[in-house]
Amino acid sequence: MKKANKKLNAAIIIIGNEILSGRTQDVNVVSISNWLNELGVKLEEVRVIPDVESTIVKTVKELKIKFKYVFTTGGIGPTHDDITAKSIAKAFSVKYCYHPEAFKILENYYEKGKFNIGRRKMARMPKSAFLIYNPSSAAPGFFIKNVYCLPGVPSILKSMLGGLGNRLVGGKKILSKTISIRTVESEIAIVLEKVQNKFKNLEIGSYPFFKQGKVGVSLVIRSTKPNLIKKCTTDILKFVKNKKIKIIINK
Amino acid sequence: MKKANKKLNAAIIIIGNEILSGRTQDVNVVSISNWLNELGVKLEEVRVIPDVESTIVKTVKELKIKFKYVFTTGGIGPTHDDITAKSIAKAFSVKYCYHPEAFKILENYYEKGKFNIGRRKMARMPKSAFLIYNPSSAAPGFFIKNVYCLPGVPSILKSMLGGLGNRLVGGKKILSKTISIRTVESEIAIVLEKVQNKFKNLEIGSYPFFKQGKVGVSLVIRSTKPNLIKKCTTDILKFVKNKKIKIIINK
Repeated sequence: MKKANKKLNAAIIIIGNEILSGRTQDVNVVSISNWLNELGVKLEEVRVIPDVESTIVKTVKELKIKFKYVFTTGGIGPTHDDITAKSIAKAFSVKYCYHPEAFKILENYYEKGKFNIGRRKMARMPKSAFLIYNPSSAAPGFFIKNVYCLPGVPSILKSMLGGLGNRLVGGKKILSKTISIRTVESEIAIVLEKVQNKFKNLEIGSYPFFKQGKVGVSLVIRSTKPNLIKKCTTDILKFVKNKKIKIIINK
Repeated sequence: MKKANKKLNAAIIIIGNEILSGRTQDVNVVSISNWLNELGVKLEEVRVIPDVESTIVKTVKELKIKFKYVFTTGGIGPTHDDITAKSIAKAFSVKYCYHPEAFKILENYYEKGKFNIGRRKMARMPKSAFLIYNPSSAAPGFFIKNVYCLPGVPSILKSMLGGLGNRLVGGKKILSKTISIRTVESEIAIVLEKVQNKFKNLEIGSYPFFKQGKVGVSLVIRSTKPNLIKKCTTDILKFVKNKKIKIIINK
């Protein structure tokens, strides 16, 4: 069981010069990560890479072996800088050709005579790819083996995740517990380390925050095991009470 | 000149379970990238990795050879999950020890008797590291060779970039021109590809947007050469005018 769970990991490859140039703020990592938590799949790496075919091919080849699931975002539109589908075909050494169902979906979506070459490009995918349906704007994503290709536009990406969930073999939901307290990290570092050493299999994160001129620390415990989270929470609340630190959030 | 410019690239390593878990939205990539544009350094890769020593060591070792500059964010605080400094020391095979100046800065910053073990940890760095001063909250970042280690808290990171600029050898400022037009990508894909083929050394990106129920496309041209951007802009505006497409932004 433990071994199987260990393999339920994922990586995201963000394909897009616009993210690297600082023009666009990525928000897709948060969407995909929270969706994966529900499915019991742990996101373990993200890479942001440019719209360069050789880089995409190399990165996909490396990560598809390293992770159970790989998600790509961006680069599946109709313009010259949309080279994800072609690059994925290269990474899997398969043909890059029209997907009959994708072609039909797009042909039906556009008015007669409006299904031009640019739009047809969105029906080209690696041979033997399966479609990821797009309830927002027709143009589908696709997956081949363990690599899932999604668009970069956040609202469209989000609308496509719903239908994709039952395609993945997941695990136990990854639970998260947050305790926010009115202190600074360096006041609790030693005792927190002791708690972490006691609960070696739990992920305990400590994150300082500054809100309305006041400082605080959020302690975040993550695990698939609710009992373990409960025990760890008890320990944390004990030292928080002993040190007379104010609790702001406990959820 | 061209060869030298080619090497002015950078990568960011975001060290933080909180980004991978979907709890925290990273905003540091945008800050660092825009700052690098001004310095004429091109951000070419971002990796988000967990707070795991072996992963940090491996990633730093790989990217410090591949890129002129490597920036890390996160993991330089006082708690158990702050393992960046120790891991960087390992990546460079140097000792992890107290930095005398950092120790003094922190000792002066805290009230007498309040400079506890947790706080002292923030003065431990790879041997021979140089400090990156922190005008917000005293605890300095550091750099060793071409690896620059910054905190994860966005406001503190931003306040530290100013003082760091003159430590980097930069190049010509990377300029960006945006033309936003009222159309959809698939209407302009073919002609845009022709423009890209004409200006092979320019980066032309096409990004659809949806605002207030209306669709549009932002065309973004990037280069260190203002003349080339101007020529390319003229070509784009020509086809936009020919197709009678409305211009929303031209800046």
